[in-house]
Amino acid sequence: MLVEITKDSLMNAVHHVIKAVAVNSPIPILQGINIQAGADGVSFTASNTSMTIQSMIPQDGASLTVKRTGAIVIPSRYFYDVIRKHDDELVVLEIKEQLILTIISGHSQIRLCGMDSAEFPYIDNGEGLSPSKLQMNSALFRSTVKQVAIVASTSETRPILTGVSFECHNNSLNLIATDGVRLASRTLHIEGYTNDSFNAIIPAKNLSEVSKLLSDADETTEIEVSNNRVKFMANGLKVESALIEGTFPSTKNVIPQSYLCEILVDKACLLKAVECVTVMASENIIRLVATADTLKLLSRTAEIGDIENEVPLLKMRGEEFIISLNGKFFIDILRNSDCESIRIRYAGKTSPIVVLPDDSLMSTLFLITPVRTHN
Amino acid sequence: MLVEITKDSLMNAVHHVIKAVAVNSPIPILQGINIQAGADGVSFTASNTSMTIQSMIPQDGASLTVKRTGAIVIPSRYFYDVIRKHDDELVVLEIKEQLILTIISGHSQIRLCGMDSAEFPYIDNGEGLSPSKLQMNSALFRSTVKQVAIVASTSETRPILTGVSFECHNNSLNLIATDGVRLASRTLHIEGYTNDSFNAIIPAKNLSEVSKLLSDADETTEIEVSNNRVKFMANGLKVESALIEGTFPSTKNVIPQSYLCEILVDKACLLKAVECVTVMASENIIRLVATADTLKLLSRTAEIGDIENEVPLLKMRGEEFIISLNGKFFIDILRNSDCESIRIRYAGKTSPIVVLPDDSLMSTLFLITPVRTHN
Repeated sequence: MLVEITKDSLMNAVHHVIKAVAVNSPIPILQGINIQAGADGVSFTASNTSMTIQSMIPQDGASLTVKRTGAIVIPSRYFYDVIRKHDDELVVLEIKEQLILTIISGHSQIRLCGMDSAEFPYIDNGEGLSPSKLQMNSALFRSTVKQVAIVASTSETRPILTGVSFECHNNSLNLIATDGVRLASRTLHIEGYTNDSFNAIIPAKNLSEVSKLLSDADETTEIEVSNNRVKFMANGLKVESALIEGTFPSTKNVIPQSYLCEILVDKACLLKAVECVTVMASENIIRLVATADTLKLLSRTAEIGDIENEVPLLKMRGEEFIISLNGKFFIDILRNSDCESIRIRYAGKTSPIVVLPDDSLMSTLFLITPVRTHN
Repeated sequence: MLVEITKDSLMNAVHHVIKAVAVNSPIPILQGINIQAGADGVSFTASNTSMTIQSMIPQDGASLTVKRTGAIVIPSRYFYDVIRKHDDELVVLEIKEQLILTIISGHSQIRLCGMDSAEFPYIDNGEGLSPSKLQMNSALFRSTVKQVAIVASTSETRPILTGVSFECHNNSLNLIATDGVRLASRTLHIEGYTNDSFNAIIPAKNLSEVSKLLSDADETTEIEVSNNRVKFMANGLKVESALIEGTFPSTKNVIPQSYLCEILVDKACLLKAVECVTVMASENIIRLVATADTLKLLSRTAEIGDIENEVPLLKMRGEEFIISLNGKFFIDILRNSDCESIRIRYAGKTSPIVVLPDDSLMSTLFLITPVRTHN
């Protein structure tokens, strides 16, 4: 291998894949980054047991020139730290001795001991399989994942709840996540989707990483779902994630179909008030009191004090209500809603509160189970 | 107490004093902030056993109006978090019921349970004592503390080394700190200093906090040293710190008086090179090789690899040398030197390396003890 590459391109690629490096893996090769220089460009790949990320830099003569092909796996942390400290524009990567990568940049020369590239896990190219394929605007995908993945469980006691359910049927894709107390659901219309229906449960952690890798530019993300894995592809990036096996709990009977009251409030006002009131909330429990024209928010902590805040209602339809819920959970939901106003539906003391971001698509729904309090 | 105050002034004052709050103190009152509203303004005070910080906002009719005097100690964390979340410009602080502070801001009302202000430690006004007094430009004081305090020890095994020695004698102030491996010393000329000589050892941690509180503006810091404490005053701020008892180790025989070689290098180049080489350094040990026109930096980690970097010499006087030292320590020193170039003096294999920032004052000296290596 003999490759000339600009520092920016190299840093960008390494920065993308380093999220998938299995830092504490007992398998040494998974602590590395697989660099493969071919005639068409250089790929950088990192992999842990759950996710593989690959970033490809095409040979364009400007940011990259491949003078001799080759491949090696090198220790990620040292490589990243060394490159990061350099400020020379051009970096030369060369394999002169077997399994040793020489990095020359400006006045410095680094020799890194590597491992055999052939032993590194590769991204399956799916020969012989016929995966379900769909395409989505990257920005839309990013915002959808941000909204839904936030409510997935982080506890491994029920592994299925650490995933986000993707259910595709008749040109519509439904994403659902829940941790048992909260639920988020968003339905998107998919154009040009031709294959069969599918259900897949994708680890929320991997999904969040994928969405962070997507740039905000107006590009398209391709998604391929096969039996036990999902692949995301956009703009030189390929991410493969394992799927979670099992059946996602049915959420049909959980979402209240009718309601006793609906209120509409300004989102920014409400978020500020909930954040403020949650500071003083014992165990994060805050109380909402909806009257004819205001939503009162209250909380208290014994021996410390109490707080009361008011948000004006934009609309109110139905009866007044009082309910207690987890303020932190409410903040998570509001922070991830890109909209001007929020619709809140009350369906009775023991039913979950329905929160609907009032955006142009109206495709997102959140549930929060109320907390029972004594007084 | 009934006080109207702008959010910015309030946040600023609380932000200053919160560093001295004893968050985990078994004495509940030390977890609080003492608010005292008098005819001339409102003071905010926080104190742990080692340091007390007081920020005073004068009554000017614009940012603060005191309508009724009074005092209360309130829980710092809740107060800070609640005020921070508000975006209303004006905050009203009022004591309506005994030991309860009511905070009204915009649409929210908070009641915080407080404690008796009379039980809070106060900053000694020094009646009956005649402290040594001196004045210094705040920016100069800040940069001096930054340079010297960084090498103080953080281990409590020898408490005296966690302090910075202030030695004032004949209009000159000498600051020294050392952790046994490194040493930093800076001598400043003090104008208008009239009192007797003094020696004081100030905890480096407190000193760093003080220097962070000082703004970069062209103001003056007053320092008052009495028997067992030191007071810093600048721009409405008062900080009082306990002193460390004992005698600071003599450093006279530690600093080499003659040298075999002196080199001059560009600071930015050297810092970049040391940072880069230290990444690959086993136990942070890097090797410096000074030849006629370059300084070579080398390091290696077994089974990972090695690195070599070069910095051109601006000047070289004396014999070539090779020495090994702790790269992290070298980085600390270089990062805190505001100068174009660095002078390095070599006085033999077993003598400490002398590092002199080549700035206009030429008043700072660093020592690093070399590491003995086998090859």
